Amino acid sequence: RTMSYGKGNVFAYRTFMEPLSGLQPIPESAFTVRDNTVFGINVTVEVGGNAFLSSFTDGDNQMVVATDSMKNFIQRHLATFSGRTIEGFIRYVGEAFLTTYSHIDWVKLTGEAVPFENTTYANGEESSTSSLVYKHSRNERNEASIELVREGNGWQINSQNSRLLDLQLVKVKDNSFVGFIRDQYTTLPEDSNRPLFIYLNIGWSYETDDDALGEEPARYVAGEQVADLASSVFHELTSPSIQHLIYQIGCRMLKRFPQLQEVTFESQNRTWDTVVEDIPETEGKVYTEPRLPFGFQRFSVTKADLGPQTTSARTEKARL
Amino acid sequence: RTMSYGKGNVFAYRTFMEPLSGLQPIPESAFTVRDNTVFGINVTVEVGGNAFLSSFTDGDNQMVVATDSMKNFIQRHLATFSGRTIEGFIRYVGEAFLTTYSHIDWVKLTGEAVPFENTTYANGEESSTSSLVYKHSRNERNEASIELVREGNGWQINSQNSRLLDLQLVKVKDNSFVGFIRDQYTTLPEDSNRPLFIYLNIGWSYETDDDALGEEPARYVAGEQVADLASSVFHELTSPSIQHLIYQIGCRMLKRFPQLQEVTFESQNRTWDTVVEDIPETEGKVYTEPRLPFGFQRFSVTKADLGPQTTSARTEKARL
Amino acid sequence: RTMSYGKGNVFAYRTFMEPLSGLQPIPESAFTVRDNTVFGINVTVEVGGNAFLSSFTDGDNQMVVATDSMKNFIQRHLATFSGRTIEGFIRYVGEAFLTTYSHIDWVKLTGEAVPFENTTYANGEESSTSSLVYKHSRNERNEASIELVREGNGWQINSQNSRLLDLQLVKVKDNSFVGFIRDQYTTLPEDSNRPLFIYLNIGWSYETDDDALGEEPARYVAGEQVADLASSVFHELTSPSIQHLIYQIGCRMLKRFPQLQEVTFESQNRTWDTVVEDIPETEGKVYTEPRLPFGFQRFSVTKADLGPQTTSARTEKARL
Amino acid sequence: RTMSYGKGNVFAYRTFMEPLSGLQPIPESAFTVRDNTVFGINVTVEVGGNAFLSSFTDGDNQMVVATDSMKNFIQRHLATFSGRTIEGFIRYVGEAFLTTYSHIDWVKLTGEAVPFENTTYANGEESSTSSLVYKHSRNERNEASIELVREGNGWQINSQNSRLLDLQLVKVKDNSFVGFIRDQYTTLPEDSNRPLFIYLNIGWSYETDDDALGEEPARYVAGEQVADLASSVFHELTSPSIQHLIYQIGCRMLKRFPQLQEVTFESQNRTWDTVVEDIPETEGKVYTEPRLPFGFQRFSVTKADLGPQTTSARTEKARL
Repeated sequence: RTMSYGKGNVFAYRTFMEPLSGLQPIPESAFTVRDNTVFGINVTVEVGGNAFLSSFTDGDNQMVVATDSMKNFIQRHLATFSGRTIEGFIRYVGEAFLTTYSHIDWVKLTGEAVPFENTTYANGEESSTSSLVYKHSRNERNEASIELVREGNGWQINSQNSRLLDLQLVKVKDNSFVGFIRDQYTTLPEDSNRPLFIYLNIGWSYETDDDALGEEPARYVAGEQVADLASSVFHELTSPSIQHLIYQIGCRMLKRFPQLQEVTFESQNRTWDTVVEDIPETEGKVYTEPRLPFGFQRFSVTKADLGPQTTSARTEKARL
Repeated sequence: RTMSYGKGNVFAYRTFMEPLSGLQPIPESAFTVRDNTVFGINVTVEVGGNAFLSSFTDGDNQMVVATDSMKNFIQRHLATFSGRTIEGFIRYVGEAFLTTYSHIDWVKLTGEAVPFENTTYANGEESSTSSLVYKHSRNERNEASIELVREGNGWQINSQNSRLLDLQLVKVKDNSFVGFIRDQYTTLPEDSNRPLFIYLNIGWSYETDDDALGEEPARYVAGEQVADLASSVFHELTSPSIQHLIYQIGCRMLKRFPQLQEVTFESQNRTWDTVVEDIPETEGKVYTEPRLPFGFQRFSVTKADLGPQTTSARTEKARL
Repeated sequence: RTMSYGKGNVFAYRTFMEPLSGLQPIPESAFTVRDNTVFGINVTVEVGGNAFLSSFTDGDNQMVVATDSMKNFIQRHLATFSGRTIEGFIRYVGEAFLTTYSHIDWVKLTGEAVPFENTTYANGEESSTSSLVYKHSRNERNEASIELVREGNGWQINSQNSRLLDLQLVKVKDNSFVGFIRDQYTTLPEDSNRPLFIYLNIGWSYETDDDALGEEPARYVAGEQVADLASSVFHELTSPSIQHLIYQIGCRMLKRFPQLQEVTFESQNRTWDTVVEDIPETEGKVYTEPRLPFGFQRFSVTKADLGPQTTSARTEKARL
Repeated sequence: RTMSYGKGNVFAYRTFMEPLSGLQPIPESAFTVRDNTVFGINVTVEVGGNAFLSSFTDGDNQMVVATDSMKNFIQRHLATFSGRTIEGFIRYVGEAFLTTYSHIDWVKLTGEAVPFENTTYANGEESSTSSLVYKHSRNERNEASIELVREGNGWQINSQNSRLLDLQLVKVKDNSFVGFIRDQYTTLPEDSNRPLFIYLNIGWSYETDDDALGEEPARYVAGEQVADLASSVFHELTSPSIQHLIYQIGCRMLKRFPQLQEVTFESQNRTWDTVVEDIPETEGKVYTEPRLPFGFQRFSVTKADLGPQTTSARTEKARL
C-alpha cells in the first residue's frame, strides 16, 4: 500500500561554497562556471518502510523520526557537504538517511535550487562583478531528484533526474501553426507567422549515475547550459509547432552531451493573442495575454532518436 | 516513450443544472443535496497515441487536434451533459473524445470543481436561502479524474478516482505527539496537549466504476460528506499523531461507504508554534504560524484494514 | 518626508476566547454570535517619529525598537487582551505601543482576521456542531485598521476602519448591462440578462469610534452580517450595473446600521463569458472564465445619500 | 466622495519597437541600451468625474465608457505610440483618454513592465545574442504611474513616478545589527556580521516632468541602472541596518542623476536565520529561510539630504 511521510520546503543556504568550474563548453552557451558563493536549496524528503505501519494503525511513534528532526538532519548535512552541486547534495543526504536510520527502506529527495545571480559595483569609473552582493532570481532554476532503495547491506539508485524548471521563452516571429485538424470544434485560425511563447521544464538523466554529481565537471550537464541550448535551437529553427521544437531541443542535447541517456519535456504554449496586425513602417504587431486555458506537451527523447549508431548499452536495456 | 499533449485550465460553468439529491445520509454529516444551480469545473485533458509521433519528429500537424479545439470540445459538451456530478462529466467527455477522434489511443481527464455556496436574503423579517446568488468558495473542493484507454471497438477505464482537495482543519486541544525517536538531530520537544492543524487531500475509488457517476445517488459518495466525516473522526479521537488520525478516517469511510474500494490520503502538518503557554483563568493559549517546512504523510487504507470479512472481490484481486 | 518602519505578517492565534454575542440582528442575516474559540489575526504594524531619523542618516540604532521585538510585543499582548474583536485588539496594541515607547509619534495597525468555521461530528445518529474542530476558511474575512497619533499626554485616533475583504458573489440571472457609450473602441455587446460575478471589499466607519470595539455588541457591525446583507441586496435587485448595486448595498448598510458614518467599496467585475447560449428545456447556459483584464469600481456612500434627515453631526462636519 | 472606476491587468505587448539608446552611463552600471524588441506592459487605468454619479445612484449607463472599451483603447494606442518607454506610453494614453472623453475629469494610469531578457544562440563555435528569442523574466521590473487632471482646456500632471519593483539582494557578510533597544520584548540577539537579505522597491520623480518620457535619453533614468546602483552601494557599504543602506542608496541616486527630485523606498528585511555557525576551513555558514513576519521600512530622500547647495527650485517649493 501507499505509506510514506516526510518534510517539504526545507530551505538551506550555504555561503562561500567552492565554485563549480571546468564544465565542458558548448557553442550555444557562454556558461562555464557556477559561482556557488550562495548555494541555496529547497529540499523535500520522503521516506518509506514497513516499520512505519504501526505509527498509522496503532499510533505508536517509537519508530518515527520526527519530520522536524529530518529538517535538522538536512540542514546540518549542508555544513559537512564537500561537493558543489544539488545532485551531489541530495545523494549525500539520502545515503546518510539510510545509514543513520536502519528501518528506513527507501528515501526520495528532491532539491530545487534557489538561484542567485551576479551583480555589479562601481570599481572606479567602471563596473565590476561583486563577490559579496547577489541577486535572488525567480526565473528558471535547476532541480535534482533521487530515489535510493536499501538493498542488502547497501542501497541502489532507483531513479535519478536533473531538471531545468520554468524557462519562459518567446520567439517574436518565424513560427507557424498550420495544417492541423479542422472540424466542428475548431475555431482557431491557421497562423503562418506567429510569435511563440513557451514555458519549458527540461529533464535529463545520465548513462552513468555518478556523472550527475559534478565531481568530474566535464561530464556534468549544467541547467544553465541547457537553458542556453534551448534558446539557441529555438532561434535557429523555423518552428511549425512546439512539438517539433522540443524534439529538436532533445536531439541537440543528446548530441552535445553524449553522457546523457534521456531527455524529457513538459512544455506549455502561452502564445499571445493578436490585437493589431499591421503597424505602418514596422514588422511589429500588438498582442495581448492569452486566455487562461493553455496547451501542454509531455515528451521524451532518447539516443534512439539520433539513429542506431549512437545508442548506448543502458538505453538498449531500457528499451527491452 | 512519454508522448502526450493536452489542455489545462479549461473552465466551464453551467447554470441551473439539476440538483443531486437522494444521497445516503451518514451520522457525521447533514449534507444530503448538492444544489448544482452553478456547476463549475476546471478541466485538464491529456491525450496519447502513436499517431501523434510525426507531429513531434517531423512537425507534421495533420493528425493534431489543436488544444484550442479541445477546449471548445469540453465546454460545448457541458451543454449536452445530462448528469449531475463532475465524475459523470469527465467520463462523458472522455468517451466523446475517443469516439470522435479514432487516432487517440487514450485520454486522461481531471475535473476540479469550482465550488459555490448558498447565500441568504431578507425574506420579510427572516433570512431565507437564495436560489439566485451564490458565493464562490476557495476552500476545500471536489476533484475527479479518469483514464480511458481504447480497446478493440470500445474502451476500458484504467483508473478512476474522486478526491476532496485542501481541507484545512484545526483541533484546538487533545492532541499529543510523544514517544518518537530522540537523537542528535532531535530538537522538537514532546507535547502531550497541542493543537493540531492539518491540511488534507482525501481520495477514494469505488468497487464498481459506475457508482462514481451519481446516477444512483444513494451509491455516490459526496466530498461534502467526506469533509464532515473527517472533522467528526478528528473530533472524536484523542490523536497521538496525524498518521493515526488518517488511518481512523480511512477506516470510518470504508465502514460508512461499503461501495468504496480504497481511500488514500495526502496530509500535511501545519501545527502552530506556542507563544504564550499560560493565560490566567482560561485554558486558552497564544500561538503563531509555524516555520515554512511542513511534515507530510501519504497513506492508503483498503477494506483489508477493516478485517477479512469485509474484503470485496475487487480488493482481493488488487492485492494479488 | 516619508519615514516609518514596522513588521508585517505577524500571525497570532488565541484559543478559547469568549464569544461575541448580543449582536443586533438584521433581516438579511442569521448571524448573531461570533464563536472566537479560535481567534486568528494577521497584524501589520508601522510606526513613525522624528527620533528615528538618525537610524537612517547615521546608522545609529539606539532609538530603534527591533521589528522582531514588535512581533513579540503584538503576540504577547494577545494573551492579555480582554476584548472580543479584531478592532478591539489592534486598538489595545496600538495604545500599548504609544505608552511603552515614548519616542514613537504615531502607530498604524492593520489586523486581518484568519477565519475559522464550525464543523460537525456524529452525535449518535445526528450531526452536532463541534467545539473542538474548526475549519480554516480562505474565503471572505474581516479586517480592521487604526491610526493613533500622540497628542499632548495622550493620543487621538486619526482614522479607524473595518472591512470585509474578498467576498465573491455570482447572481446567475437578472442582471443587465446596456445603454453605455458605443464608439470606435467598443466591442462589448449589450446584454440584457447576464450572470454577474463580482468581487467585493466593503469598508465601514462608525460615527463614534468606541462602537467599533464590540464592547457594546449591539452597536458593533460584524463583517459576517455585512456579507449577508450584500448577498441579500444582490438577490433583491435587478441590477443594471455593479455601480448601481454597490450604491444600493451602501444605502442598505447605513439604514440597517445607523451607528455607521460611511461605507466604502472596492468592487471588481469578473463576469463569465458565454459559450453556449441555448440549452434545450432549461434556462441554463454554459460560460467560461473571463479574460484577464477586470473592471473595477471605487465608491463611498454616506448618510447624505439616505436624505438630509438622517445626516449626523459627524457626517456634517466631514462634509465641510 | 470616493468615486472612480477602471480596468486592471490590461496586458499589451508590442514587438520590434525601437531600442532606447543614448542613456547617460554611470560607474555602477554597464547598462546603456534598452532593447525593446519585446515591449510588454501591464496597465491599470482609473478614471473619475462627476458625470459618473448617476451611473451609481440611478443605474444610468449613458455616460459610462465600458471598461472593456478602455482595454481596447489602451491596446490599440500601443500600435500608434511612437515613444520608447513605459513612462511615455502611459502619458500618451492618459492624454488620449482626456481628449477622447470630455466628461472624464481625471485619469490615473500605472504601467508595469513585463521584462524580457536577451538569450544566446550558437553562431558557429561561439554564442551570440539573439534578436529573435527572449526570456521572460520574473525578477525586478520597472513601473511608471501618472495622474492627469483636466484643467481649463488642457490638463496638468498631478503626480508622476517611476519605480523599480521587487529587487531582491543578499550581501553575504559585512552587515551588522547592534545597539538597538533591549527590553522585555527583545529576544533578537545582536549580530555583528550577518548576511543581509533585502527586498527593495525604489521610486523616483523628476524635477522636470518631461525628462521621464525618455525623449531625451541622456536625461532618462532607467530602472536597470537603478538596480545596479543599489547593488553597488550595498557592496561598498559596511551596513549597520537597512535604514542606513537605503539612505545611502538614495543619496547616491540623487548625486548620479541630478535631474531627479526625490527618491522613495519600500524595503523589507528577509535575512536568513543561522543554522550552522562554524564550518571548518571556510568562512561560510549554513542558514535557513526566516519565519514569516518581515520587517519593513518606508523612506524618502530629497536633494536637501545632499546639502543646501544642491537643492532645486522645485524641491524648495515642495518643502514650503
